[in-house]
Amino acid sequence: MSLDTIATILNPRAVAIVGASDELQKWGGSMLALLRKFHYGGQIYPVNPKSQEVQGLPAFASVRAIAAPVDVALVAVPNERVLDAIRDCAGAGVKAVLMVTSQFAEAGEQGRALQEQVVAIARAAGTRIIGPNCMGYFSSHASLCLLNSQALMRNASLPAGSIALVSQSGALAGTMLARAYDLGAGFSFCVSLGNQADLEVCDFLEYAIADAHTRVISLYVEGLKDPLRFLDLLRRARAAGKPVLLTKAGRTDSGQRAVQSHTASMAGAYRTFEACVRHAGAVIVDDPLELVVQAAAWASLPAPAKRGVAVFSGSGGGGAVASDLVDEAGLRAATLSGATVQALAALMPAASAHLPFDLGSVPAADRLRQPDWLKRVLATMMADDHVGAGLFVMTTQPDMVGAAETVIACQRDAGKPLLFVNAASSCGDAAVARLREAGLPHFASVKEATRFLVNRLADARAAGTDETPAAQPPFSRAEVDAACRQLRAGLVPEHQAKQLLCAAGIATTGGEVAASAGEAVELARRLGFPLAMKVVSPQISHKSDIGGVALDIADEAMVASRFADLRAAAGKVPGAVFEGCLLQRMARADAELLVGTHWDAQFGAMLTFGFGGTLVELQRDTALLPATASRPAIARALSALRQYPLLNGYRGRPPARVDSIVELIHRMGQLAAHLGERLAECEANPVMVHGDTILVADARAVWKEEQ
Amino acid sequence: MSLDTIATILNPRAVAIVGASDELQKWGGSMLALLRKFHYGGQIYPVNPKSQEVQGLPAFASVRAIAAPVDVALVAVPNERVLDAIRDCAGAGVKAVLMVTSQFAEAGEQGRALQEQVVAIARAAGTRIIGPNCMGYFSSHASLCLLNSQALMRNASLPAGSIALVSQSGALAGTMLARAYDLGAGFSFCVSLGNQADLEVCDFLEYAIADAHTRVISLYVEGLKDPLRFLDLLRRARAAGKPVLLTKAGRTDSGQRAVQSHTASMAGAYRTFEACVRHAGAVIVDDPLELVVQAAAWASLPAPAKRGVAVFSGSGGGGAVASDLVDEAGLRAATLSGATVQALAALMPAASAHLPFDLGSVPAADRLRQPDWLKRVLATMMADDHVGAGLFVMTTQPDMVGAAETVIACQRDAGKPLLFVNAASSCGDAAVARLREAGLPHFASVKEATRFLVNRLADARAAGTDETPAAQPPFSRAEVDAACRQLRAGLVPEHQAKQLLCAAGIATTGGEVAASAGEAVELARRLGFPLAMKVVSPQISHKSDIGGVALDIADEAMVASRFADLRAAAGKVPGAVFEGCLLQRMARADAELLVGTHWDAQFGAMLTFGFGGTLVELQRDTALLPATASRPAIARALSALRQYPLLNGYRGRPPARVDSIVELIHRMGQLAAHLGERLAECEANPVMVHGDTILVADARAVWKEEQ
Repeated sequence: MSLDTIATILNPRAVAIVGASDELQKWGGSMLALLRKFHYGGQIYPVNPKSQEVQGLPAFASVRAIAAPVDVALVAVPNERVLDAIRDCAGAGVKAVLMVTSQFAEAGEQGRALQEQVVAIARAAGTRIIGPNCMGYFSSHASLCLLNSQALMRNASLPAGSIALVSQSGALAGTMLARAYDLGAGFSFCVSLGNQADLEVCDFLEYAIADAHTRVISLYVEGLKDPLRFLDLLRRARAAGKPVLLTKAGRTDSGQRAVQSHTASMAGAYRTFEACVRHAGAVIVDDPLELVVQAAAWASLPAPAKRGVAVFSGSGGGGAVASDLVDEAGLRAATLSGATVQALAALMPAASAHLPFDLGSVPAADRLRQPDWLKRVLATMMADDHVGAGLFVMTTQPDMVGAAETVIACQRDAGKPLLFVNAASSCGDAAVARLREAGLPHFASVKEATRFLVNRLADARAAGTDETPAAQPPFSRAEVDAACRQLRAGLVPEHQAKQLLCAAGIATTGGEVAASAGEAVELARRLGFPLAMKVVSPQISHKSDIGGVALDIADEAMVASRFADLRAAAGKVPGAVFEGCLLQRMARADAELLVGTHWDAQFGAMLTFGFGGTLVELQRDTALLPATASRPAIARALSALRQYPLLNGYRGRPPARVDSIVELIHRMGQLAAHLGERLAECEANPVMVHGDTILVADARAVWKEEQ
Repeated sequence: MSLDTIATILNPRAVAIVGASDELQKWGGSMLALLRKFHYGGQIYPVNPKSQEVQGLPAFASVRAIAAPVDVALVAVPNERVLDAIRDCAGAGVKAVLMVTSQFAEAGEQGRALQEQVVAIARAAGTRIIGPNCMGYFSSHASLCLLNSQALMRNASLPAGSIALVSQSGALAGTMLARAYDLGAGFSFCVSLGNQADLEVCDFLEYAIADAHTRVISLYVEGLKDPLRFLDLLRRARAAGKPVLLTKAGRTDSGQRAVQSHTASMAGAYRTFEACVRHAGAVIVDDPLELVVQAAAWASLPAPAKRGVAVFSGSGGGGAVASDLVDEAGLRAATLSGATVQALAALMPAASAHLPFDLGSVPAADRLRQPDWLKRVLATMMADDHVGAGLFVMTTQPDMVGAAETVIACQRDAGKPLLFVNAASSCGDAAVARLREAGLPHFASVKEATRFLVNRLADARAAGTDETPAAQPPFSRAEVDAACRQLRAGLVPEHQAKQLLCAAGIATTGGEVAASAGEAVELARRLGFPLAMKVVSPQISHKSDIGGVALDIADEAMVASRFADLRAAAGKVPGAVFEGCLLQRMARADAELLVGTHWDAQFGAMLTFGFGGTLVELQRDTALLPATASRPAIARALSALRQYPLLNGYRGRPPARVDSIVELIHRMGQLAAHLGERLAECEANPVMVHGDTILVADARAVWKEEQ
């Protein structure tokens, strides 16, 4: 069970440094020095067969020679001596080995083979491994530092606090620590995982959820070893009330190339990752340095009560720019209530008593009237019910330390976040130091601050909704399975795809296939006009692209002539076998939707829906969710789309039955989840929406044989 | 002529301080101290009727008492003594008065009246005014500092350089200076303008264009006194090769409210401002602190040769994240050529010789082989033809100063920008200091750095295109004017709007009006089927919204029944007078466009075009340009739209004649520019595009009587 092992790793009674050295440029030297610098209270055993003593401590020839229990051994020997060192640790019953050496799986086949040997030896002995190719870790509450970082070397104490930081990159972890020192952010523990040959992100995430010292969890992720476990842990963190903030590298082709050369992990398609992780309740931050700022804010500030933001600034211009950025972030500048304005009358002229509050607009005589004047003003404004959060933009001004102290005092009483933006650059250093000492974060820009508010609000809103997935699929499994038995592997033709949807209780325009023009006329007479006709060929997926669709067919003569046209269009597609034409009733649409599913190798069945029909790629107005998403989650994502007003009676259109659309999307998702990887893809497009009538006019799927 | 006055203001031979004081908390005290601190070489005359001496200098009872020429007088007396002070200055023949006092136009009617008196007195004497309600200015090359700012008080020398900074906010100017000191950015001059009672942004912008000390111009703008002069100056700056970077406050409703309470200027509708300013060649930055960073980069770095970016980092993770951010910014991670990789073989293992370059992936033995190893590596990579720019992301690492020095040396030789991102927070302070001393900027985040590259590239690209507006409108003015004579003030009905477009050489679906069902049937017989019918009523603008459009009318019986339907639909609109129905041929469309114009009170005729027809608001895929935009500018903006591929043969559609579409848009723009404010609005929507055929299917306009 990794939870116990990690508890031991973070609170070891004894640590061995294999490769301990007096030379501080060497890993075995700097790590031993760091371990002692921060006053680790357990046993420290330097291991070096060539020395009697290292850095003043008695040294041992091997771990086995220590003859006392060792919980953690740092292995900092050159690559070629690693196997011996691991055998020694395993033989000595060490609980966990921290391997900082590189040139393993990340460096090619030879390294990968060596890494596998290391893991095999350790596993046989029940020894767990962190790394290799990592920078180590620290645990604040154990005063244990085994993390090689300039930031830790340059500072006198460990940055202790309630944030857990788990990073796949060691150098980035060091960089994040440097930022944390500047911000006054503190960590329960921080671990860099490197190649994750054994222990991985999920193990430490699981520990952080259980850890009493941890209130906020921050992750730097490159690729996931076990995506479904990861999502499950994110949901558990949410249930435990511990926010998870994460940065993912390898979002784009370029980033992904970099990740693959950096560690041995595979970065999944980012949009799918993002959709699943967000749906599981985590917050994504796109830059690891900002991850620290945001985590610090989550750890120390309350949630905003509402969207309205009160901007305070020492400069009218600063307030105006901040108000713009607040609006542009999707928040709203708060307006003070009449009662608040009245209460402010004792403190300033009426012309100044509004938001954004410009300190400079109040005559000096008013400001100097009483020593705690600014605090009274801010407290009065923050207490206003219209104000969900405050934003104090500190421009260069005479008493910046005083301004910081006022913000600190107001934050203590407000019960709402009052964010401090240092716009004074290094002129504001002394003010920022006060915030750091008070355990409050500061922001380097208004945008950083508004991103916190936006994410925090969205989180608070999402926490209140019921996301329980359906216990039973909303259709007969037997009927769906029967429809599946008709399918051949490969591209599923429209009429069969529609039969599958039909089995899942989804309404379509139907349609039947005519193999000849004569059959088509016969069929048309039965269906009635106007009709649509489409080419049927297993090799043709996007029919309209090759002229394989004829619409508004009004009479029997047109049926015959269009049949010939479509056969000719199919004939022009190399290798396409023409099987006939599908005839169906025309459907009207005030809005055309796409609803599709696909199987993702990492995250399983995924659900896409949005506006645009065949123009969906150009309109870029779709949502992506796990296929198991609940109806409320689907409804929320649908209503966030740009063209959602089309469903709401836009410009004289009949309002659509949104609940029926949500039901259709939900059924598609459940269908994909039920069929699993056999349903590689399924797309209903267009789905024609006209008032109460919602019909799938065209569908396609890709079916895979069971393995 | 304000150019000469501003030359004198920035290089005065003698300065009077009216209200000079020994007390440094007072304006007249701190400003005098600042003036002396930075070693101003001209004459300084303290004016204070109550003292013989101020700060050790002989004082004068009034400006007139000085009995020597005074170029600039700072007026720092309380509001109630301002008129006397101005009379004194005017009487003494002072060239310009700097008024820092507040409570003028920005504080209400009384203040506005006082401000007008001040301007009247000054104007009568030929004295110019900066302010009131401003913080002052400094001029580096004259060692003249009359700017009240904490940043200047806390630093030993003026931040001299080649950037001009003109700001409507004084406190923000101070904040920008603080950032500039941290960055090592320097200014030719910096002026805060406050209420702009007399001299305004345009005056200083014009001076900066002519000023030999200025290479880059940065502006903080709240509202414009003379928008058309502003645009003209931006074009002149571009022609002079001086980039203009600007931040505008009052972009949103909230920001605009703040601006109106802050200064007395009106903030125009932001989208129009943005369109005009960008079209005139300026670069918009949304945060004034970032404005300084970007201006510093423009002033000291060459333009990138191409889009490919070489990312260098001390951390694989740092490189991966930076590569993601590079891609997300619309740039591209560069790939090294085979020749470069070969050249790198002498410096590192093949596994490391690629981009993003991860310093940490190279074994120490290689790195330590020669003292200038890193410089050789970077120089070799930067010299690669695929690399347009370099991005060095400095994570915390042992030799950060060495890394900075390497970047400085490489930048010197590269001829391409090599941007330095300090990701090490305050651990990187010493490294950043080296850059500052070398006159090179550093960036606090990868995003700041990529924004520079994106803007710089776009600027270089735009500089090469011909934007000359048409000398003659591409239509007969006489024909257009004849069509206008038919128009009544107010909403112009479709058929008249189409006649106007027709006179400008724009093809429409035409159409004639039938007043009765009988006339309609007659007309239909003449036009042929299928037809469209639309309600005609001066009160009904958006016909489809009220069911006022009937399509696909196939025969005479349908004509009669639809006529009755449309009459009934019009009858339901309160106050609408039904004048009949417009009959026209149906037009086919593979893409529906909107092309519209409107008259903007600040910037004149504006041109909007984009995709979506009646759904244009939901699709948000439009461009906005000045109506006089050239054909190449229109073509460029059109091709940047999301749905542009629709015109290019998307999914089997016939490719459209893009040049004909550009011509149509250009004619609309020229029509609006020709008719001026009489054509308040004009909209062709939808414009039906089907291969070579481009027809305006519907149009409306709003006509204003000539004043």
